[in-house]
Amino acid sequence: MNIRIINGPNLDLLGTREPSIYGSRSFGDHLTELRAEFPGASVDLFQSNVEGELINALHQADAECDGVVLNAAGYTHTSVALRDALATMGIPVVEVHISNIHAREEFRQHSLTAAHCVGVITGFGLDGYRLAIDHLLRRKG
Amino acid sequence: MNIRIINGPNLDLLGTREPSIYGSRSFGDHLTELRAEFPGASVDLFQSNVEGELINALHQADAECDGVVLNAAGYTHTSVALRDALATMGIPVVEVHISNIHAREEFRQHSLTAAHCVGVITGFGLDGYRLAIDHLLRRKG
Amino acid sequence: MNIRIINGPNLDLLGTREPSIYGSRSFGDHLTELRAEFPGASVDLFQSNVEGELINALHQADAECDGVVLNAAGYTHTSVALRDALATMGIPVVEVHISNIHAREEFRQHSLTAAHCVGVITGFGLDGYRLAIDHLLRRKG
Amino acid sequence: MNIRIINGPNLDLLGTREPSIYGSRSFGDHLTELRAEFPGASVDLFQSNVEGELINALHQADAECDGVVLNAAGYTHTSVALRDALATMGIPVVEVHISNIHAREEFRQHSLTAAHCVGVITGFGLDGYRLAIDHLLRRKG
Amino acid sequence: MNIRIINGPNLDLLGTREPSIYGSRSFGDHLTELRAEFPGASVDLFQSNVEGELINALHQADAECDGVVLNAAGYTHTSVALRDALATMGIPVVEVHISNIHAREEFRQHSLTAAHCVGVITGFGLDGYRLAIDHLLRRKG
Amino acid sequence: MNIRIINGPNLDLLGTREPSIYGSRSFGDHLTELRAEFPGASVDLFQSNVEGELINALHQADAECDGVVLNAAGYTHTSVALRDALATMGIPVVEVHISNIHAREEFRQHSLTAAHCVGVITGFGLDGYRLAIDHLLRRKG
Amino acid sequence: MNIRIINGPNLDLLGTREPSIYGSRSFGDHLTELRAEFPGASVDLFQSNVEGELINALHQADAECDGVVLNAAGYTHTSVALRDALATMGIPVVEVHISNIHAREEFRQHSLTAAHCVGVITGFGLDGYRLAIDHLLRRKG
Amino acid sequence: MNIRIINGPNLDLLGTREPSIYGSRSFGDHLTELRAEFPGASVDLFQSNVEGELINALHQADAECDGVVLNAAGYTHTSVALRDALATMGIPVVEVHISNIHAREEFRQHSLTAAHCVGVITGFGLDGYRLAIDHLLRRKG
Amino acid sequence: MNIRIINGPNLDLLGTREPSIYGSRSFGDHLTELRAEFPGASVDLFQSNVEGELINALHQADAECDGVVLNAAGYTHTSVALRDALATMGIPVVEVHISNIHAREEFRQHSLTAAHCVGVITGFGLDGYRLAIDHLLRRKG
Amino acid sequence: MNIRIINGPNLDLLGTREPSIYGSRSFGDHLTELRAEFPGASVDLFQSNVEGELINALHQADAECDGVVLNAAGYTHTSVALRDALATMGIPVVEVHISNIHAREEFRQHSLTAAHCVGVITGFGLDGYRLAIDHLLRRKG
Amino acid sequence: MNIRIINGPNLDLLGTREPSIYGSRSFGDHLTELRAEFPGASVDLFQSNVEGELINALHQADAECDGVVLNAAGYTHTSVALRDALATMGIPVVEVHISNIHAREEFRQHSLTAAHCVGVITGFGLDGYRLAIDHLLRRKG
Amino acid sequence: MNIRIINGPNLDLLGTREPSIYGSRSFGDHLTELRAEFPGASVDLFQSNVEGELINALHQADAECDGVVLNAAGYTHTSVALRDALATMGIPVVEVHISNIHAREEFRQHSLTAAHCVGVITGFGLDGYRLAIDHLLRRKG
Repeated sequence: MNIRIINGPNLDLLGTREPSIYGSRSFGDHLTELRAEFPGASVDLFQSNVEGELINALHQADAECDGVVLNAAGYTHTSVALRDALATMGIPVVEVHISNIHAREEFRQHSLTAAHCVGVITGFGLDGYRLAIDHLLRRKG
Repeated sequence: MNIRIINGPNLDLLGTREPSIYGSRSFGDHLTELRAEFPGASVDLFQSNVEGELINALHQADAECDGVVLNAAGYTHTSVALRDALATMGIPVVEVHISNIHAREEFRQHSLTAAHCVGVITGFGLDGYRLAIDHLLRRKG
Repeated sequence: MNIRIINGPNLDLLGTREPSIYGSRSFGDHLTELRAEFPGASVDLFQSNVEGELINALHQADAECDGVVLNAAGYTHTSVALRDALATMGIPVVEVHISNIHAREEFRQHSLTAAHCVGVITGFGLDGYRLAIDHLLRRKG
Repeated sequence: MNIRIINGPNLDLLGTREPSIYGSRSFGDHLTELRAEFPGASVDLFQSNVEGELINALHQADAECDGVVLNAAGYTHTSVALRDALATMGIPVVEVHISNIHAREEFRQHSLTAAHCVGVITGFGLDGYRLAIDHLLRRKG
Repeated sequence: MNIRIINGPNLDLLGTREPSIYGSRSFGDHLTELRAEFPGASVDLFQSNVEGELINALHQADAECDGVVLNAAGYTHTSVALRDALATMGIPVVEVHISNIHAREEFRQHSLTAAHCVGVITGFGLDGYRLAIDHLLRRKG
Repeated sequence: MNIRIINGPNLDLLGTREPSIYGSRSFGDHLTELRAEFPGASVDLFQSNVEGELINALHQADAECDGVVLNAAGYTHTSVALRDALATMGIPVVEVHISNIHAREEFRQHSLTAAHCVGVITGFGLDGYRLAIDHLLRRKG
Repeated sequence: MNIRIINGPNLDLLGTREPSIYGSRSFGDHLTELRAEFPGASVDLFQSNVEGELINALHQADAECDGVVLNAAGYTHTSVALRDALATMGIPVVEVHISNIHAREEFRQHSLTAAHCVGVITGFGLDGYRLAIDHLLRRKG
Repeated sequence: MNIRIINGPNLDLLGTREPSIYGSRSFGDHLTELRAEFPGASVDLFQSNVEGELINALHQADAECDGVVLNAAGYTHTSVALRDALATMGIPVVEVHISNIHAREEFRQHSLTAAHCVGVITGFGLDGYRLAIDHLLRRKG
Repeated sequence: MNIRIINGPNLDLLGTREPSIYGSRSFGDHLTELRAEFPGASVDLFQSNVEGELINALHQADAECDGVVLNAAGYTHTSVALRDALATMGIPVVEVHISNIHAREEFRQHSLTAAHCVGVITGFGLDGYRLAIDHLLRRKG
Repeated sequence: MNIRIINGPNLDLLGTREPSIYGSRSFGDHLTELRAEFPGASVDLFQSNVEGELINALHQADAECDGVVLNAAGYTHTSVALRDALATMGIPVVEVHISNIHAREEFRQHSLTAAHCVGVITGFGLDGYRLAIDHLLRRKG
Repeated sequence: MNIRIINGPNLDLLGTREPSIYGSRSFGDHLTELRAEFPGASVDLFQSNVEGELINALHQADAECDGVVLNAAGYTHTSVALRDALATMGIPVVEVHISNIHAREEFRQHSLTAAHCVGVITGFGLDGYRLAIDHLLRRKG
Repeated sequence: MNIRIINGPNLDLLGTREPSIYGSRSFGDHLTELRAEFPGASVDLFQSNVEGELINALHQADAECDGVVLNAAGYTHTSVALRDALATMGIPVVEVHISNIHAREEFRQHSLTAAHCVGVITGFGLDGYRLAIDHLLRRKG
């Protein structure tokens, strides 16, 4: 079973910036742990700061994978184009946010993309990625 | 470790009504499975259709438990009183919704309660309860 | 044929308070007349000021009755939980308001509950209950 | 006792178009039944697709009738001019809608005309006209 | 100098209805007085309850008159079509309202038509018509 | 193949008024050209400034024609009644606007009628009518 | 009969600034003409750029005059305090604006003060002052 | 003279939770002091987390007391039902909030209940209750 | 202990205007009573209709007094400048309104100034000033 | 005459995804047909999912082509940057949407880009591209 | 070259209040430095807490100076009257704010006055005044 | 001291397009002048039309430079992702706009990015870049 994590803008900085909101571990460290956690699955990662490349990545994952964990970060709240990409997909996508978006600015409390995902996991730090993969495997199995 | 699931209005009907949205299994069946899933934890359940009794239950859980899984259903979107109850709590609370609230009516897309929870899990059906408990145990352990 | 009237908050005061808006007859007097009007039907009454008890009553009526006349009063405009209870029901529910809600405050002009009722009768005083029952009997017969 | 039914735009098509929303009987058939239902009253009908002719009809009915049943259809939500016409009337007017306007588009959930009617009956199909006349006769008698 | 007064919906009832808001004199009486007041001008009147006939009347007046006094009543607040008609006119139009629209319902406080008139006179009762004509004559003279 | 062009308020003035926005050719001239352009089709025209007559015309066209080109002008943005008339139609209707409504006032940027048309062509001057007919013929052929 | 004209902020610049909007005559010149126009009345003028001094002036005029012509300029749209001052007055106040406020920025289209005036005259240039006085004299006489 | 204090949701926790906002004294301690402060009055207390029980309590107090001090807490901002209960009351009710609601979240700055109270005292901590009783006694005496 | 009452626009008219809303006693009479009520405190008064002079008065009071009772009247709802002045103050300020602002126009239900005051007392007539001073003395003592 | 079609996000999937909304033919097939339809013109295609590359493409087309057909898809509703790019262009741009955006979600009913295009063609499926080119050729010829 | 700095409400307190937001230096100290910085220019200062006096000052500066640096503080967000004063001016005005208004309350993020200034400099502390003068001199020179 | 200017979408066209808004000089010419103006600093430039590349550039500048001058152009008003990138930065960023955004369309008057910059300079043409660098050097020096 192939799972792709697709991370959006600024998530390349994870572990080095704003640790009070996003925690102090890099996503690389975390990916190693995630793979150990799910030995029966293949988990890989794509990250880009470019909205259109995230769309490309969703199109590609739809052809190559069994499920996607998407953290579109700032594009979550503004991108109709990403929403449209999700609407075309045949595999399940789980939306994840590291921080609790309901406890932040008003404009972060509406997601344009969530309606075309299976569901949303928000506020559990990096553990949200593990929960998302866990659900995708259950769903599939 | 004691986890209390607190279910709000109409969730007593689970498994008998609107299966297309909420699934066809009763919460009783599901609770048995959840307990089997987490043998090291004690998981119990409180359900009420009365907003104020949910507040009472949160106060009581704060004294008796190590974590709460809250599905406040319809009160999620309208209850400042529940939000205030959550603000007083010392133990972590995870907000769960069975359906993907972002894919339903506009008024379901804002949660008054989420800002005072650890985070929100929405759209994964009854599996959302399992993910919530899983996180609470990781957090604790 | 069993019809249950479910009255919400402050309707226990009917006939004693604000007669200029709600009329000066108690609901008890009116119920007697209603029963005389519809000898072939069984009409009973539930009243509560507690939102969650109205939800309980709707669940119970769905199992015991052939139709419901609901005046949720102030909860009409604020209760997603009541709306959700109505969405689960298999029997027809008619929403009634004694006063013409369109001629009162702005916030009374939107009903959260009406979308899941058969229809709404508003502004005809206590006669609205008679019209509601009359329709339920026609619908059935 | 003279009752005039005043039907607004597109109601001339009743029974031929969009039967899933408005039912499949023509208003002519229904009028015959209504007259049979209320032998002691004189019930007649005016229909126009022109907003101003509905205003003319209201002015005329105010001089000739004892009560009006008004279904202003699409003008209900947009016409200040109709609202003003209703404000001038000395006889009771009951607003009727065939479909449950609260279960349709957002813009159908506000009525500009209702505040100057006795009340509103919405969602009961053509039976709403019968209920409206029934009330007008009770009110009068 | 030819001045045409164009009166919109319900103004045919002037003097017979709602005298507390609109005064108790008929427009016919008033027209006689207006003509006496302005012996050097020719003042005539068009009234209709039909929005489109008011548009026709504006087109016609533009060809036949030197100025228009327009009281579009309820259409003032809702008619883009009337606004468009005014935008085409080559002669000055003065918008008049009998009551002070700023002291009435919120929706009466915005005029769609005023932007394409010379100006607006509101709240002076029937005297507003006299002031409007007076200005048109000054403007011309 | 019969195509009816239905033009709304103020379009009778085309070619004589506001040429900077609407161009300087009369619709009569244009109709002659359109007919020459589509020799295999029968193209006729209805124009009215009265909203209800446009509704009548749509009802009639639905019985007599194979397609409609509708320019409802100012009523586009305000008429629920026209929207309802369109919803009843069995033949395709193309909405046309001469000017680019997206480059004008904010209130012109929402169309109540478009949702029940095949589509919208806006901003191409009188050429929009040609494009609309061209599409209707293709669609049919 | 004593009439006081009370002019608000920036109206001291009349005739020297923005002549395209406000005309090129100073208010002093205009006052001379106004007095000539109404020989039977005493017309004087107060101008201030300070909101609170306009309130003082209204209080004083209420004690000394028979009517007020108020052009509160920019404070018209923002001053609850001026509105409250008008609400206390026993003499009639006519609100005047030189330009047609309905043809300018959106925020100029709502008047906080107009509800407590007799009415409003807007868009007639300096002639608006003459119309206002004319009405006050008629009203009185 | 009998005064009843009616406290709403979460106020049972006073003195134990969120002392930075609500202070660190329990309401029991405070009640003893309040009684000492007003020896000539009888002051008692009702608290519930259930909206409908607060309505019941208001109905009962109206029959038994001379005045009410109401702190509806979170229900203040959401309850039309409580507002309706207040509208039926014959004795004066003073609304009290412990914290300054104007310095907190936007949604706390509108009170649905205040319009049917004598007035509101907000921001003075527990001293607000003393001020409320003090006013009720003055009013009465 | 020095307390300064700062009264805003139109409060100089107290006792002479709109007695149905503001009562019929002048503020001078009331001040004498207030001083008798609090013999241990020095209470003085500043009133102005000018927003900027109220700001000056707050600056001066901050240097000379121990507490302020502020009734900014109409400026309460519109003045960011007053809010900023309050934000700079080192002594406690209590906001008072004579009428119950929650029972009046919508625009009176939001206070720009309250967030930087200790709290607000509204609806108790002139007795609100006494309650405010009473609290300031308690706070201090 | 050179025409460039510029397609935005997700339009690379045309013919393979969501055929119920966008039809089942690939854009490649369609381009062949378009070229056959307009033998006298040179029609080429640029597609990207990256907003900024669409901007680059518009800049380039402005230098190389005689007209552009732009379907910016999801960026239509959110991109001020694209709007700014269009504002700089010297050649005509026609905005095309395959589906009728007026019959879809609310947020698709406002176009940020349309104001700086010649006009918009929406709802005609792939035929919209043909109509757009047809207009550009007429315009030019 | 004469530059006048016009400072609005509460800026007289600069250096003594809220140093965390506005810095700890008095404006007097700063003015001395500014003059040293620009020896070839004459820089003077006007400060008032009264909105109308700021308008007077702008009128006067327009006659006496070559440029103005305006910090209208709280009036920036509420004053149509100041906006109107700026619209009349013939010399360039630069709007300055000491704090970054985009990082403060929502209501500070819209400026009514900026549209009639050359531009705005916000967030650079007292250095903003230097930048403003620097630009005015460049512009002139 | 290293300063990087980061220019967003369409700014590559500077000097060739819309000179009435943005001036007629290319940014290359301007950069030469800027470097001459600040001989002690190193000033370089990055420009892209791609939102994500601007995010990359901000990440890189944070590692390599002492300050950034950012003109995000159209992305200023829509990009949460850019805002998030700014929130991670350790060096000061100054937001610059060439035109006065407060004098243009409503949607240009809110900046999502400004809250995480030092401040904003808008409306001074290309001179805004000089002022921004000047401030950064002062700040540093």
